[in-house]
Amino acid sequence: MPDVNRQITLAARPSGLPQESDFRLIEAPLPRPVSGEVLVRALFLSMDPYMRLVMNGQPGYARSVGLNEVMPGAVVGQVVESNDPRLGPGDYVEGMLGWQEYAVAPAKTLRRIDSTGAPITTALYVLGMPGLIAYFGLLDICRPQPGETVVVSAAAGAVGSLVGQIAKIKRCRAVGIAGSNEKIRFITREMGFDDGFNYKETPDYDARLKELCPNGIDIYFDNVGGTITDAVMRHIDTRARIAISGQISQYNATEPGMGPRWLGQLVVKQAKVEGFLVHQFSERYEEGLKQLGSWLREKRIRYREQIAEGLENAPRAFIGMLEGENIGKQLVKIGS
Amino acid sequence: MPDVNRQITLAARPSGLPQESDFRLIEAPLPRPVSGEVLVRALFLSMDPYMRLVMNGQPGYARSVGLNEVMPGAVVGQVVESNDPRLGPGDYVEGMLGWQEYAVAPAKTLRRIDSTGAPITTALYVLGMPGLIAYFGLLDICRPQPGETVVVSAAAGAVGSLVGQIAKIKRCRAVGIAGSNEKIRFITREMGFDDGFNYKETPDYDARLKELCPNGIDIYFDNVGGTITDAVMRHIDTRARIAISGQISQYNATEPGMGPRWLGQLVVKQAKVEGFLVHQFSERYEEGLKQLGSWLREKRIRYREQIAEGLENAPRAFIGMLEGENIGKQLVKIGS
Repeated sequence: MPDVNRQITLAARPSGLPQESDFRLIEAPLPRPVSGEVLVRALFLSMDPYMRLVMNGQPGYARSVGLNEVMPGAVVGQVVESNDPRLGPGDYVEGMLGWQEYAVAPAKTLRRIDSTGAPITTALYVLGMPGLIAYFGLLDICRPQPGETVVVSAAAGAVGSLVGQIAKIKRCRAVGIAGSNEKIRFITREMGFDDGFNYKETPDYDARLKELCPNGIDIYFDNVGGTITDAVMRHIDTRARIAISGQISQYNATEPGMGPRWLGQLVVKQAKVEGFLVHQFSERYEEGLKQLGSWLREKRIRYREQIAEGLENAPRAFIGMLEGENIGKQLVKIGS
Repeated sequence: MPDVNRQITLAARPSGLPQESDFRLIEAPLPRPVSGEVLVRALFLSMDPYMRLVMNGQPGYARSVGLNEVMPGAVVGQVVESNDPRLGPGDYVEGMLGWQEYAVAPAKTLRRIDSTGAPITTALYVLGMPGLIAYFGLLDICRPQPGETVVVSAAAGAVGSLVGQIAKIKRCRAVGIAGSNEKIRFITREMGFDDGFNYKETPDYDARLKELCPNGIDIYFDNVGGTITDAVMRHIDTRARIAISGQISQYNATEPGMGPRWLGQLVVKQAKVEGFLVHQFSERYEEGLKQLGSWLREKRIRYREQIAEGLENAPRAFIGMLEGENIGKQLVKIGS
């Protein structure tokens, strides 16, 4: 075990798209676990859009991170030292351990992972937060019925690709919106979506949505916001349900964006728009993980990971994710 | 009985605020009821904001009205001739009979009114569509809990003033937004709202909302939209519920308005926005009318009517309502 811990801290609050200089790689003493705590060696770090919001220093989405604090993030790692009977050395765990090679945390805040089942990285993906967001966001907020049309934005991302697959399991038509032709091929050929379009090469979203959703949109699962969402709102059907999971198109904005007003459309369509955070379903995580695990074993859910190597490359991987470079889940491999 | 029927038709589709010249007063032959129908003499015509939308000739909110067709509208009247066993001469009824002095309609489309109870005009107000909108919109869409803060826009209007009173019955704090100091006095002194503000004389909506809703807004019942709604969205509390009943500020717009994007706020607050039309609750009208009737008898609900005299003055009364001239319910007295 080394006696130093490498960490990535927030060096500056970004204005717009973060730069690598907004992060700093530092060395700190290796922390020691006290009673009830464990020391964990990080293996994989999850890259998630919400991280952009915690960099802003405003209250809101998730707890904010202070300047010179370690960037927060979900990690899968291995216990190397334990002062708690619940966990022992060698155990695999998942928890909010941050962008660093080692972390100390109370054992009770960590989730033990069964490493004999699915690969441990799935604890940050299908069997972790993205899976639970897709599961509860689609099934609880939107309540899909067989034959309904489900549109998903950021459809090739970790959450979006799962939403489309769960929609198919529920016998809906799944239409994805993503930012490259490769992503559209990925969702339709590998993830089982019925159809989709690359918004970057589609001049007229309205015409394309009309073509792909001739009976209107019953459900919209939104990770993106902005002009894509504006267009979708014009094509919702009566009693549509719209789940707002994220608004990644707006996260780098330096002031609130403006868009067309569509509340009148909600009245005409008797439609619902609901924002959610996954932790509002925390009492039902076990149910969600059990179902997602079954679907994964039955190969009714597939996934793709994109893995950057080394903690020092996390800022670049994160910025790339904000720019839409990843297909599926973006991870950073920190240890092996 | 006269042998002609005076009617008001749509003479031109308005651009922006309707003008009196967009309507035409005409004379037509008195219609005759065939089997299953009745002839009704109109007594009171209801003025409602949705009428502005049906003038546009676009599908949507309610059925559109064609050029030179009689303007649609809810009426309370008296049966003068019946070809249906369900109704007889002298019976009071309520139905969508339009802007005219006499109308023929199938008896089964009319609601018989008990004229020995509340005044017959309440069938267009507390015990009619505005009452049901307030009842189901607040109770079903927003589910108020004791101690919560309910904000209502167009609070001195027919629907808004009822929403605030039902919120008080449910032991909430009721805060109204309206367009004159007289309206604010009306809602706070006569309708029992806890507080409110005149948006036309309030330079900083945010500061005022913060002052009046120090614990945030749990429920927003919106009849108005536009910049008032933009401000309210910035002050919602966690798990807020927002019912969109109407968007009167936008009805005269010649193109869709633009406003700040706030879907990110819905995520942070895990909040819901739902548009509704009252007819989605049609199977439960009886329940709603029964409860509203009880509250009315117990004087837990109060109301104020503003009555224009004569069919020929309906266009002027309607335009006045769109401009916010009325307090409480705007009616037109057509016969006596």
